[in-house]
Amino acid sequence: MKALKQSQMKKLEIIVQGEYQEFVVDLLDRAGVSGWTLVHNLSGKGSHGSHEGHLMFNADDVLVMIITAVPEDLAGPILEGLTPFFNKHMGVVFTSDISVTRLGKFQQPAPGQ
Amino acid sequence: MKALKQSQMKKLEIIVQGEYQEFVVDLLDRAGVSGWTLVHNLSGKGSHGSHEGHLMFNADDVLVMIITAVPEDLAGPILEGLTPFFNKHMGVVFTSDISVTRLGKFQQPAPGQ
Amino acid sequence: MKALKQSQMKKLEIIVQGEYQEFVVDLLDRAGVSGWTLVHNLSGKGSHGSHEGHLMFNADDVLVMIITAVPEDLAGPILEGLTPFFNKHMGVVFTSDISVTRLGKFQQPAPGQ
Repeated sequence: MKALKQSQMKKLEIIVQGEYQEFVVDLLDRAGVSGWTLVHNLSGKGSHGSHEGHLMFNADDVLVMIITAVPEDLAGPILEGLTPFFNKHMGVVFTSDISVTRLGKFQQPAPGQ
Repeated sequence: MKALKQSQMKKLEIIVQGEYQEFVVDLLDRAGVSGWTLVHNLSGKGSHGSHEGHLMFNADDVLVMIITAVPEDLAGPILEGLTPFFNKHMGVVFTSDISVTRLGKFQQPAPGQ
Repeated sequence: MKALKQSQMKKLEIIVQGEYQEFVVDLLDRAGVSGWTLVHNLSGKGSHGSHEGHLMFNADDVLVMIITAVPEDLAGPILEGLTPFFNKHMGVVFTSDISVTRLGKFQQPAPGQ
């Protein structure tokens, strides 16, 4: 039995319109992120207007939150990779410090982190 | 193309019964909060009993989480504004430090923050 | 009217397959955790493969996130209690520092915390 490992990582919470979910997930995949979780059917209000998540027949207006944990040196490049997207589309990214308890589910932090 | 900006802010996660969603959102609006995200259909257990989110025919018992990011000097007044509510109703607020990457979606932090 | 209290606590976000929701909640209950919130119908991708939350007819593959706030000295024992589970099952735990505003909904921190 392996012991649980705690790693200091950056948690990204990326909130976008549901129709752009695959774009974000593809970007994470290409950045080498091996795990993420999706929260569906969010509502939100931002400077681009209100978005109501419960209108299931109008799914394009539903927001999703993509949660992932990445080594600190990967957070910056991912945020930069999202810049052109956020210049055109509604959304926001929350970044915070977390410990991740895992069994090899996330990319290893670089040595020294 | 604008560059993404990182701002240090306070993330508030406000969990209340769904029927009080509008009360909280109105309070945030009046406090000058320009963006928030709603997670619907949560279940929870607190000291006031258990609440099961999947009973969609009993929507009053469903919990919601209202996520927002505010400048640090706005967090205290919002929490104080919620005090009378939490004296009467079930719920909890989690406050944490985050960086927000955005394009003018959230209120500007006051100078010096 | 009671004043709101702020407590420094550890937030745990435990993401597991929906069929193990009760196992985790039972473990939290036995650890003395008095409050938690469940986010249902998550999707995710981890090293064990992809899990798509919107296939409601295949509910066993849906993920849930159990959010709780615990005193710091309780976080370690809970994570250790989850170790055998995570040796066998997909999932992850995010741990972060938060302030909790509450009215006696969560277990009191031990003196000196």
